[in-house]
Amino acid sequence: MAFAIDRLIERIKELRSPVCVGLDPSTDLLPESLLRRYAADVPGAFLEFNKCIIDAVYGIVPVVKPQIAFYERYGIAGISAYLETVSYAKSRGLLVIGDIKRGDIGSTAAAYADAHLGEDGPDFVTINPYLGRDAVEPFINACQKNGKGLFVLVVTSNPGGADLQNLELQKGGRLYEHVGGLVSEWGKDLVGTKGYSSVCAVVGATAPAQAKKLRMSMPQTFFLIPGYGAQGGTAADAAVCFNKDGIGGIVNSSRGIIAAWKKPEYAEKYGKDAGCYADCARSEAIKMIEDLRGHIGGLND
Amino acid sequence: MAFAIDRLIERIKELRSPVCVGLDPSTDLLPESLLRRYAADVPGAFLEFNKCIIDAVYGIVPVVKPQIAFYERYGIAGISAYLETVSYAKSRGLLVIGDIKRGDIGSTAAAYADAHLGEDGPDFVTINPYLGRDAVEPFINACQKNGKGLFVLVVTSNPGGADLQNLELQKGGRLYEHVGGLVSEWGKDLVGTKGYSSVCAVVGATAPAQAKKLRMSMPQTFFLIPGYGAQGGTAADAAVCFNKDGIGGIVNSSRGIIAAWKKPEYAEKYGKDAGCYADCARSEAIKMIEDLRGHIGGLND
Repeated sequence: MAFAIDRLIERIKELRSPVCVGLDPSTDLLPESLLRRYAADVPGAFLEFNKCIIDAVYGIVPVVKPQIAFYERYGIAGISAYLETVSYAKSRGLLVIGDIKRGDIGSTAAAYADAHLGEDGPDFVTINPYLGRDAVEPFINACQKNGKGLFVLVVTSNPGGADLQNLELQKGGRLYEHVGGLVSEWGKDLVGTKGYSSVCAVVGATAPAQAKKLRMSMPQTFFLIPGYGAQGGTAADAAVCFNKDGIGGIVNSSRGIIAAWKKPEYAEKYGKDAGCYADCARSEAIKMIEDLRGHIGGLND
Repeated sequence: MAFAIDRLIERIKELRSPVCVGLDPSTDLLPESLLRRYAADVPGAFLEFNKCIIDAVYGIVPVVKPQIAFYERYGIAGISAYLETVSYAKSRGLLVIGDIKRGDIGSTAAAYADAHLGEDGPDFVTINPYLGRDAVEPFINACQKNGKGLFVLVVTSNPGGADLQNLELQKGGRLYEHVGGLVSEWGKDLVGTKGYSSVCAVVGATAPAQAKKLRMSMPQTFFLIPGYGAQGGTAADAAVCFNKDGIGGIVNSSRGIIAAWKKPEYAEKYGKDAGCYADCARSEAIKMIEDLRGHIGGLND
């Protein structure tokens, strides 16, 4: 079974685009006209919104990341919209990261791995490391069996992340560095043909100093970099996660792309509630790709 | 809005029963005759199984804890069975802990809180602390608004838990103690009329030394104690989590109760595949309650 990380890196190189579009819909990010058309069926509106965004970006970005919480909020119908979003993105040739951040003891983790890393599921899922090795193993087994990958939380992009992740350890280093070491170790049997493991790490763009350290200490680990744009991370911050060949991470933006239609420059051009949200998303994705290309040398070769 | 923790403690006192039944169904824990009757509809079999267990135990235990992973594994139909299990348990007067172990940054955590702590949802959910304070706040707000509670992971019952939780910190103490301190702090505005907060902690029965320390340092924090029975924790191990009045924690058993019918003593009495699984579960729950009463003095007053 091919390595998920190889598929991702190949597509990043083809498109010269280390960008992930976060599909995190909420009613305040969708145009009112779309919501009105679906009346009480909010998940139906989410699915149409996602499909239009996917159609607008699938040729320029390698991967999308639906955050399952925004779908779980709408119960069964919401979860159906999540599953259909995953399928639709895959049918368009996109890779998919299911942002589920699950984590539990062995037998329970196996159930989550069954639920989210089956053949029809996303190519990658995000998971939480707080329960340690035996909570991660069932996910690793599913990756080996089904050619899938993981992004394990190491440094998150939110202010409270520091409450645990930045704690100094008695043996030296901080908690996030220790977790980084565990992630490298957990991934050593899943290193693909391009030198990176399918067991990857989440490393926020809002923490460039930590990211730089981790890039040095985890040479075989690929990073998912949230926090660009709306959360304050810049292309220069994200660039420290990349190696000289332009490979090493994928930068996520959610609201910044999918809700671009709300930005003054677009609202002025298209009118406040135009059906142009997918065009706006595409324009913003292109801007972001160019911004990153400007800071990550190897992508231009 | 009344405090969730007050409702739980009241019911524990009424029944003299600090026991939580984990509703974690899997095909190997259900009698073959039940699975055969439901053919391909495994979630349907889970729901019937759960209802029969609930009917057998609702008068002797205060609370049940369905682990959502075992339902997510079966997609939409599985999640429906989870939701119906929650409703059915509540209709029988049981309190419910939704074992979801979610955790994410602010806006996403708010979506999870909406999804799982609404009026029709469980009384409590479990959450993961790795993302720090702003990942927990939306859950705390939902608890305040809807009279619900949380169990935050502090010490888990699995061997890998030590990979992070036992790390020694430079400032002194271990990571789990630091997390315990955060949980106390997060819960200080939700202390109910009985002296405990609705922001509670998960503290495994497999770690009695840690549990004893935490019981001292977190006097207002109520504990959910997994790991009893099948995972190796004993009543004596669990007892260190309780105060002199017999209050302070609730001990969970999942397989040990719901799959009691597979134990040799019952299999011999009822035959290998009898429909007696609910009676067996009730018998094991009674044994567990008596075992705990024998080790937790205050419950006998």
